[in-house]
Parts: sequence; C-alpha cells; structure tokens
Amino acid sequence: MTRFWLLLCLCVFFLTVNAPWTPATAQTSANNSTAPVYTADGKLVFPAKYREWIYLTTGLDMDYSPTVNLAEHSMFDNVFVNPEAYKAFVATGKWPDKTIFVLEGRVAGSKGSINKGGHYQTTDIMSRSIHLKDESRGGWAFFGFDEPTTGNHIPAQAVCYSCHADHGAVDTTFVQFYPTLLEIARQKGTFSPGYLKDEAAMADKKESKK
Amino acid sequence: MTRFWLLLCLCVFFLTVNAPWTPATAQTSANNSTAPVYTADGKLVFPAKYREWIYLTTGLDMDYSPTVNLAEHSMFDNVFVNPEAYKAFVATGKWPDKTIFVLEGRVAGSKGSINKGGHYQTTDIMSRSIHLKDESRGGWAFFGFDEPTTGNHIPAQAVCYSCHADHGAVDTTFVQFYPTLLEIARQKGTFSPGYLKDEAAMADKKESKK
Repeated sequence: MTRFWLLLCLCVFFLTVNAPWTPATAQTSANNSTAPVYTADGKLVFPAKYREWIYLTTGLDMDYSPTVNLAEHSMFDNVFVNPEAYKAFVATGKWPDKTIFVLEGRVAGSKGSINKGGHYQTTDIMSRSIHLKDESRGGWAFFGFDEPTTGNHIPAQAVCYSCHADHGAVDTTFVQFYPTLLEIARQKGTFSPGYLKDEAAMADKKESKK
Repeated sequence: MTRFWLLLCLCVFFLTVNAPWTPATAQTSANNSTAPVYTADGKLVFPAKYREWIYLTTGLDMDYSPTVNLAEHSMFDNVFVNPEAYKAFVATGKWPDKTIFVLEGRVAGSKGSINKGGHYQTTDIMSRSIHLKDESRGGWAFFGFDEPTTGNHIPAQAVCYSCHADHGAVDTTFVQFYPTLLEIARQKGTFSPGYLKDEAAMADKKESKK
C-alpha cells in the first residue's frame, strides 16, 4: 500500500539527504510553463515555478517504503498542482488533460532558530517527482527526477501505477488526502470505484467492531 | 519564545477541535480580494481565496503554548501569503505595504484511507489567523478569527508582536522558516538585527561546545 505516487517508487528517483537540492538550483531551469514540456528523448522538463502553483497538502513521514532510510531524517512532502488543472477540478471534480502534480520532499528540522519542538521545513530538498495526465502520450504517467532539470518516465509496470489506480479517490489521484478538494469530489460524484470500495470496507470493519 | 504569530496568541482566537471549520464555510465569504478589507468597526474580513495564494511552509506541532491542549490532536500549520507580496519579496527581499499572511491550522490524521503511518492533513481546520502590514493603519498587525468571516485586531501589547519584532528574520516575519525565501533575504541583505543577533549567539554556542 502506498500514498501518493512517491512512496513505492522511491527507489527509482530518491535523492540522498547528503546531497540535497537547493531552491536556487531548481530556479536555474528555463521551464516556466504550467503545461508539460518534454525533451527530444522523452524526458520531462521540471517546472521551475511549481512553488507558485496551487498548494494541495503536506504530509510528514507517511507510510514510506521500508527500503528508505529515514531513521535520522523526518521528511515533509508537499503537493502542488498547476493552476489550470486546479480550476477545472473545482468546477467539475475531475482532472483535465495536462494536469501536473509536483511532489516535493523536504527534510524536517526540529530544533533551529527559536523553535524548540515539533517539526518545521528546512531548505534541504530530498526528492522531487511528478505525476501528470497527458492524453497525447497515453494518459497518466509518473516521472522521477534524479537530476534537477529533467526527469525519467517511470515504467507503467511500477507499483505506483496500480496502487493509484486501485486506491486513488479520483482518477488515480489521492484526493482523499487533499483536504480542500475532497468535498468537491463528493459533491460532483467523481469518486473512483476503488475508493468507494475501500471506504465501504472500512465502514464494515468499524461496524463489526461495535 | 514562539514561532509564527499564532503560538502565544492562541488563547485569543483558538477554535476547538470539536467544532472545526470546513472549507465550504470559508468559501461562503464574499471577500476574494488579495488586499486587506475591513468592516466599518475595524474588523478584518477573511480572504476566502487564500488557498489560491502562494504557499510558504508547513509545520507540525511546533513549540506550542503549554495552555493549548494538543494531547489528542497533532496539528499542521500552513502559511500562505498574497501573490503581490510574494512577487515583491522575491524581487527585493522585503515585504511591501498590504502584505497579508494567512496561518491555517489543520488537524493531523495518522491512520486513514490507505495510510498507515506518519501524519496527513485532514479536512478539520483548528484555527485561522492573519498577520498583515498596512501602513495606513500603523504597520504590522495580527488578527484572530474566532468566527469564519471577520477577525478581531489583537492588541499591540500581545507577546506575538514583541516576539516577531525581536526574532523574525525579516521585518517581524519568520522568514527563517520559509525555505524558498530564506536565501533570497540572505542575498538581498534584509535580515533583521534581532535575527542576526540570534544566529550569532547560536554560532557562539556551537563553537563553545567544540
């Protein structure tokens, strides 16, 4: 089981904490588009301005693959979506063609500056990955970025695809973890069969415990 | 010591977890402006579209006042700023007049849907507050929202003001916790004397431990 597209695909594109990216590195990219941009050999160009897109949610240390060593580093994951796709979702409860999600993993700090407890986000980026819908290239796809500006397509056999298809609340995406979008999907009636099945199973489980 | 404007001011405007706001409630407000809007009696009208502003950071259970009972509820705090202020900061390292920060506190979930560990953001909002700069009304001010659409001015004697003035990295704001803005402030040379003093003291402390 995984949440978001990152979790079971981490082995493909995880960056080490010892060599984190900096925001300045990403900003050297020339791709300021909010639509997908590819290289001639099919790589995806990282969207440099994703931090100015629409923010959807943040998790901390969620359900990671046991192969990832987070023993010494808690990690936040922030999710952004391109503004055009967000507007379409608010209106329809569905993701349009050319929807792009960026997942950004950041090292969590605990004691720093005047902070004494809990966790805050640091300048150290651990990972960046993309989940996008491009009908001209076969629909939804995942890309892992093990270099700052271009990312490799993750093969459709990877478990992230089947997990998203089976459990994503709307159209292979984990809208159940996007708090401002969940109610919109409910009102528009766009929940996936897999999500409704999961929810029904959880409700049965709770009922049987009574 | 506190981080952000929320922490020591929580008693003024904290909402109970038992009666959380919903996104739908906030969206009933008619204020879609990215500039401050006040009522005739000096209350601040909550900006309904703040989730479409620029996202700055998220913390989890950071350094809260001991008077706040979080024993059963972890909380995320998300920070957003109006797009005009963000653009000005990126260009200058300074906050312009009419800068508005929104701090949103959300209940953290742990086990839900397919998630088994860590923390994710739920639809339950615990608090919303604003820190804004309005030169026509005396400069920086805090507002607490104990109702969905209008907020009360927090008196300048409150400790959030002095803490922000003494420790905020830039112009009474905690840029040290906004990972994409910290380097900009460093490059532009806009760190506050208080922040530089804190950093020097921390460096001395580290040095003396060697």
